[in-house]
Amino acid sequence: MTEKRKKRKLVSSRAKRHGLPPGSVVRVSGGGQDGRIVVFDYDPDNLTECDVEDVGECFAFSGKPTVTWINVIGAVDVEAIQVLGKHYGLHPLVLEDALNTYQRPKCEDYGDYLEIVLKMSRWDESSGEVGLQQVSLILGGGFVISFQEHRGDVFEAVRDRIRGGQGRIRQMGADYLFYSLLDAVVDGHFAMLEHRGNVIESLEEQVVSRPDPGTLRRLHHVRREGMLIRKAIWPLREVVAEIRRGESALMTSEMRPYLADLYDHTLQIIDTMETLRDVLAAMLETYLSVVNNRMNEVMKMLMVVATIFIPLTFIAGLYGMNFEHMPELRWPWAYPAVLAAMAGIAGGMIVYFKHKKWL
Amino acid sequence: MTEKRKKRKLVSSRAKRHGLPPGSVVRVSGGGQDGRIVVFDYDPDNLTECDVEDVGECFAFSGKPTVTWINVIGAVDVEAIQVLGKHYGLHPLVLEDALNTYQRPKCEDYGDYLEIVLKMSRWDESSGEVGLQQVSLILGGGFVISFQEHRGDVFEAVRDRIRGGQGRIRQMGADYLFYSLLDAVVDGHFAMLEHRGNVIESLEEQVVSRPDPGTLRRLHHVRREGMLIRKAIWPLREVVAEIRRGESALMTSEMRPYLADLYDHTLQIIDTMETLRDVLAAMLETYLSVVNNRMNEVMKMLMVVATIFIPLTFIAGLYGMNFEHMPELRWPWAYPAVLAAMAGIAGGMIVYFKHKKWL
Amino acid sequence: MTEKRKKRKLVSSRAKRHGLPPGSVVRVSGGGQDGRIVVFDYDPDNLTECDVEDVGECFAFSGKPTVTWINVIGAVDVEAIQVLGKHYGLHPLVLEDALNTYQRPKCEDYGDYLEIVLKMSRWDESSGEVGLQQVSLILGGGFVISFQEHRGDVFEAVRDRIRGGQGRIRQMGADYLFYSLLDAVVDGHFAMLEHRGNVIESLEEQVVSRPDPGTLRRLHHVRREGMLIRKAIWPLREVVAEIRRGESALMTSEMRPYLADLYDHTLQIIDTMETLRDVLAAMLETYLSVVNNRMNEVMKMLMVVATIFIPLTFIAGLYGMNFEHMPELRWPWAYPAVLAAMAGIAGGMIVYFKHKKWL
Amino acid sequence: MTEKRKKRKLVSSRAKRHGLPPGSVVRVSGGGQDGRIVVFDYDPDNLTECDVEDVGECFAFSGKPTVTWINVIGAVDVEAIQVLGKHYGLHPLVLEDALNTYQRPKCEDYGDYLEIVLKMSRWDESSGEVGLQQVSLILGGGFVISFQEHRGDVFEAVRDRIRGGQGRIRQMGADYLFYSLLDAVVDGHFAMLEHRGNVIESLEEQVVSRPDPGTLRRLHHVRREGMLIRKAIWPLREVVAEIRRGESALMTSEMRPYLADLYDHTLQIIDTMETLRDVLAAMLETYLSVVNNRMNEVMKMLMVVATIFIPLTFIAGLYGMNFEHMPELRWPWAYPAVLAAMAGIAGGMIVYFKHKKWL
Amino acid sequence: MTEKRKKRKLVSSRAKRHGLPPGSVVRVSGGGQDGRIVVFDYDPDNLTECDVEDVGECFAFSGKPTVTWINVIGAVDVEAIQVLGKHYGLHPLVLEDALNTYQRPKCEDYGDYLEIVLKMSRWDESSGEVGLQQVSLILGGGFVISFQEHRGDVFEAVRDRIRGGQGRIRQMGADYLFYSLLDAVVDGHFAMLEHRGNVIESLEEQVVSRPDPGTLRRLHHVRREGMLIRKAIWPLREVVAEIRRGESALMTSEMRPYLADLYDHTLQIIDTMETLRDVLAAMLETYLSVVNNRMNEVMKMLMVVATIFIPLTFIAGLYGMNFEHMPELRWPWAYPAVLAAMAGIAGGMIVYFKHKKWL
Repeated sequence: MTEKRKKRKLVSSRAKRHGLPPGSVVRVSGGGQDGRIVVFDYDPDNLTECDVEDVGECFAFSGKPTVTWINVIGAVDVEAIQVLGKHYGLHPLVLEDALNTYQRPKCEDYGDYLEIVLKMSRWDESSGEVGLQQVSLILGGGFVISFQEHRGDVFEAVRDRIRGGQGRIRQMGADYLFYSLLDAVVDGHFAMLEHRGNVIESLEEQVVSRPDPGTLRRLHHVRREGMLIRKAIWPLREVVAEIRRGESALMTSEMRPYLADLYDHTLQIIDTMETLRDVLAAMLETYLSVVNNRMNEVMKMLMVVATIFIPLTFIAGLYGMNFEHMPELRWPWAYPAVLAAMAGIAGGMIVYFKHKKWL
Repeated sequence: MTEKRKKRKLVSSRAKRHGLPPGSVVRVSGGGQDGRIVVFDYDPDNLTECDVEDVGECFAFSGKPTVTWINVIGAVDVEAIQVLGKHYGLHPLVLEDALNTYQRPKCEDYGDYLEIVLKMSRWDESSGEVGLQQVSLILGGGFVISFQEHRGDVFEAVRDRIRGGQGRIRQMGADYLFYSLLDAVVDGHFAMLEHRGNVIESLEEQVVSRPDPGTLRRLHHVRREGMLIRKAIWPLREVVAEIRRGESALMTSEMRPYLADLYDHTLQIIDTMETLRDVLAAMLETYLSVVNNRMNEVMKMLMVVATIFIPLTFIAGLYGMNFEHMPELRWPWAYPAVLAAMAGIAGGMIVYFKHKKWL
Repeated sequence: MTEKRKKRKLVSSRAKRHGLPPGSVVRVSGGGQDGRIVVFDYDPDNLTECDVEDVGECFAFSGKPTVTWINVIGAVDVEAIQVLGKHYGLHPLVLEDALNTYQRPKCEDYGDYLEIVLKMSRWDESSGEVGLQQVSLILGGGFVISFQEHRGDVFEAVRDRIRGGQGRIRQMGADYLFYSLLDAVVDGHFAMLEHRGNVIESLEEQVVSRPDPGTLRRLHHVRREGMLIRKAIWPLREVVAEIRRGESALMTSEMRPYLADLYDHTLQIIDTMETLRDVLAAMLETYLSVVNNRMNEVMKMLMVVATIFIPLTFIAGLYGMNFEHMPELRWPWAYPAVLAAMAGIAGGMIVYFKHKKWL
Repeated sequence: MTEKRKKRKLVSSRAKRHGLPPGSVVRVSGGGQDGRIVVFDYDPDNLTECDVEDVGECFAFSGKPTVTWINVIGAVDVEAIQVLGKHYGLHPLVLEDALNTYQRPKCEDYGDYLEIVLKMSRWDESSGEVGLQQVSLILGGGFVISFQEHRGDVFEAVRDRIRGGQGRIRQMGADYLFYSLLDAVVDGHFAMLEHRGNVIESLEEQVVSRPDPGTLRRLHHVRREGMLIRKAIWPLREVVAEIRRGESALMTSEMRPYLADLYDHTLQIIDTMETLRDVLAAMLETYLSVVNNRMNEVMKMLMVVATIFIPLTFIAGLYGMNFEHMPELRWPWAYPAVLAAMAGIAGGMIVYFKHKKWL
Repeated sequence: MTEKRKKRKLVSSRAKRHGLPPGSVVRVSGGGQDGRIVVFDYDPDNLTECDVEDVGECFAFSGKPTVTWINVIGAVDVEAIQVLGKHYGLHPLVLEDALNTYQRPKCEDYGDYLEIVLKMSRWDESSGEVGLQQVSLILGGGFVISFQEHRGDVFEAVRDRIRGGQGRIRQMGADYLFYSLLDAVVDGHFAMLEHRGNVIESLEEQVVSRPDPGTLRRLHHVRREGMLIRKAIWPLREVVAEIRRGESALMTSEMRPYLADLYDHTLQIIDTMETLRDVLAAMLETYLSVVNNRMNEVMKMLMVVATIFIPLTFIAGLYGMNFEHMPELRWPWAYPAVLAAMAGIAGGMIVYFKHKKWL
């Protein structure tokens, strides 16, 4: 199963991007054309949730004391995004980052707003695959804009909390919303690593007790996937550390313990990822040793059988020669004597092998 | 034995936690329901030790100049913990950390109180297993609150010292108690590493003198356990370094040499852990070499026997052919001559092999 | 194919350089003699592009408010370069760096001008090779001077943008041009890594499904190339970080987000390069395991055939002996009985091997 | 020989220490009971050297302008040490460190005095073993106290210099004495590494020219010893760096070049240790390759003999069949023809093998 | 050839040094007794070059505005060096460093003068060996003193430039001379690495196309040499970085770009050295794989021959049995039928092996 999956590309193609001037807002992701823009606008007492057709509808929410979350999902029209960017005063490079989905996770403070680019991971139960998609989060005064590659994200729980008014999310500002989205991404990584952990444990079981060539292919597949996940998640630490350092005026001091907590969770993800990596590397070594051990057993079997019978066959061949003058051939007790000698040789060898611990 | 033990999960399940708002006080550990709260309240002259039924009983001790240690053991009622947290002014994230037992070790200074989350290790003599459980320690003005997953801890010696008034513990404040608990955790790690060291030494003995496939499985098991222990203990260094830096007003300057000592012990634990890891890695290499060497001996045996007898068998086969016109068959001295030639070939080969050092 | 390519030298010969006083302007590269100097001089409204024969023609552009890009391509006369250097007040070491093409990438701030030495990479489609050449970029007040080893560079897109007036390049100063050239170099590395990624993926396919000795040679070739590419690209991070730190007055503050973006791309290149390296290292391990697995299959085949037939052949040899007194030879049912015994032995062994999972 | 030596414990037992309050002055080392206290008291003109029975005798020397070196050797009475500690105002943790010989090397500045804990190494010529013992050095105003586990140290040269008045030791203060002791420890490590270097070189000789299974055991033994030595010596760098930083008022500025020199020697020890480690790791790889090469030679031998004779034996078997209707058996030139064919086959195979470079 | 060279000692013997007081000026190098002192004294217009017999002759040059270079070559009389040291006010430790040739490269600023200890490397064309010798350089006001172990250095080009007045050396001060000597050392390392690169490339050729056991020994030799070179050169980075930081008043600010250039070259040497190391490590892996691949070919050959003929030989043996009642033996078409069956079995096996890709 596993080995038939389509391999994730080692280096994503950026062909459309090459040669363009920096800051060109061109879509480089491979997403489909069914983009949506969903807006949440809330304060402790009111909540508006709407699916906007025209990006201009979003602008009605700006300038109010409420918190606005503009959730851009999938491949929305490039012009609409440029209009949005212009309205909120975003730098062209920010929009480029949002649309070019092969970014390295990063955190950029533009003064008026804070940009974060992240990878969001989801374990796809049906295929047993890890799905990675890029998320851009922009925190401004009273608003958060999020861009994601396609539907199927880890934000549903945040949306439910906004809708249901659970926890403190409705009482707090855009910075808390921003934090909640980050926290959801980090929790998503945990869930994904938990699944990976299970896959690795079942592989480990196989490696130790009944390895076969398919095991090796699966090991290779899982290690390779791990390398790409690592590349996607590793820079998260830096990103969260930079937000935590808390130099942006957009983050109120009340957020400090939450950000510290978020940072600890990020470290834990990275620890877990590294431990899984070490376990996988150790498993490969163990696999090789187990396979080697089995081969050795097989070789010993061959050695024992061959080493015992080769001399006996030689003796049989000896008395199968057709010389006329072989007096032994006529002695009446010669045959039983030869049989006895053969048994003696075989027995002696077995005793010797047992002594040498080869049996 | 060893290989039948239940494997520790690579990544702990946090299923109940996903999707909850940050700061939700939900029990995620797998502990049973037999929680207890034990309170120690002492000054140089007096000592009260009691098992509280209702968490409210603890509050009688607060506000007094004595040192109070509230020792929450195992799965205590979540509401009781919330009441406790409220009384002592603890942040919801602190309570979440205490109940969610899959935290990374960390140190958080909340100004009024200091929170430490740690892993405590105990060598379980009966199963030959290392037991890890999470401990949260909270140091406030005049009180220490500790949360632990279940009974069976490394604090018994501290309790005995409080009861018996040995050492300086009764003369000193809550910071010294806090330090004593940390010191007990670090000492517990030492004891655990000492046991691991013994296990590794006995494995080493096996590897060098009589390796078998079970050795490999045990090696794998011990390495894997080491990885998980490493993940649990490694962050301890940072935690102790942060306390030692001594920026919290809760730590009096008199504690400085003790904290320096604690830090040195932590470094020593980490050095020891790393040395054990290196020894294990070197052992795997040695194991492979030893197994390889033995296999080579076996192969050489086969080679010698086969290479000597194959030509002899051919000669025997030659004179077993039934051609009518084979004049040698009739020569009277042919048989002894052939036997002599065979002995000569075998002898020559043995000399050649000795010369080549293959024998 | 791949394995016949001319290997890149591990350490470039600097023979001509040894023993010369520091700052000697001597050409050490191996380029041909067909050098050109191309000048671009532009402001938002005007553009002059010319191929200069005499280096003195360039000086007409200096002192004007336009941006001048002097593009020295290939092996231009050493004296012309010294004249150029004198006119723009460049330190002899800068000219030495430009001509000696075995420099380590570096960034040097001389106050009046900023010098960067870089490696530019291009994937040569026809040979499937990565071409690396050195570029020196000098940013002064209102001018950029670039030196490159030979034609065939990654700057064509920048030249087209200057010609066509796309993007902001014509609106902005020499610092933006300087940045654009750097950006083009970084984009070139991305394109090259993308090709390398494809090569590695196709090798991976081979390794897992049908490895042969040529695969190993190709793996070795690709790893070795990777080491040299790594050596050329790795110092880029430092260089870009130093420019980003932005202490040079030649970089206006408007460039900050661009430089931050450039830095992120540089980190991403390095991440990608490291991931490819890890993938290659893992592939070698997998290759060895796959080859080992196949060998084991072959060995098992031999073992099964040999171990089954060796005893049978012995039995046949036994009854081929010519003793006169072998009563079995005369029993009428002896032959079928021996055949049956042989079938029984073979069958028993097969069952035993199946049980042992050797078949 | 080597492999029969008693193995050094991986983790030292600290059993007696567990559960005691911090600062408990309990002897944890395994030393015998024949401790001595030797006092050196000197100024440029006078020298007193005496073996004290009662620790109180030492106190006569304090308060004078001379330099006093109290050299506590081996297991001296715990009470005596407590009296000594009290007289010189030492913190209980310092005494604990001195008696508990499983400390990590460290440097602690207590203001009035400076404590250093180190490992001292000595090459034991008779056993070919490295002996490690802990030394605590305490530098106060005008005195140095040293604690060591047992006799046999690297300080004899320092004692001789004090006695003979060579060098500057008698002209200078306690800080120079303290430095001289440290320098003697570092020189002792050099001597030990020199011996280890010789052992490793002779092993290397064995590995390359005549490896046997004992070589592997010796390699393993030497690597393991290296790991424990590394653990003991590595922290020395930090310790010396901390002293060199020179913030203690006890170190006069005149000592600066000496401390810088000491630091360089420490770095050199660590470089040497790391080089030896790399050499050992490379040797294991080489060992495996050499053993592998030899095995391959043996296998080729078997292959050649078996592959040549197996077809010939088959042919011989063919004409040994007893069919009545085998017309060849009666042809007079059949036997020589078969012999010729056999020689042809064998010759052809040898040519083929030579062509394939298998011979 | 290569494998017969005398191995460089892993740890140099410092026997004469142990136990001496720090600052003892004792010769520890193994150089012969043919030392010389050569003095260069120059200003832009005049040059004196002389070979001094008595060290006192040097002192005539001090106190003048000219630049004096005292070049102490080989084993000069220890007393002469002490006289020299005294005249120029050098600390005894500096003289100790100059004579004790087992120093770690270092840079020490004594205020009035700057001391550098380095390793100088030279490729010895005749032996194909890398020669390393220690150089001490002392820069004071208007003078440079250099100590080297023996003749045959990398300074000849500097001497020629002084004699010929090429470059700026005669126009500039002692700091430029000091820098020129350092630059010559760094250039010497480049030349040496270039030769090593060639050696490694020719080894690589051997490894990939025709590995033999001698290849392995050469690989081991080259790796080992690389480890010792690495130990000698690695600290150079720190040394040059410290000079570059430029806190010594002896270095004029005009030297800054030269020192920056020197630092870049040092980094490049270290990069190159590391790349060579990685290439060597990869070569060992490739060597093992290549040898393994060849062995596998040989094994397959054996397997094919043995697996095909073993069953055929068994059949031949079967009809060689001497049972009286074997009716097949009398059937006229039995012999051709058996031959046909044998051909069929052999053919079927070959087809099966081709199908399995074992042939």
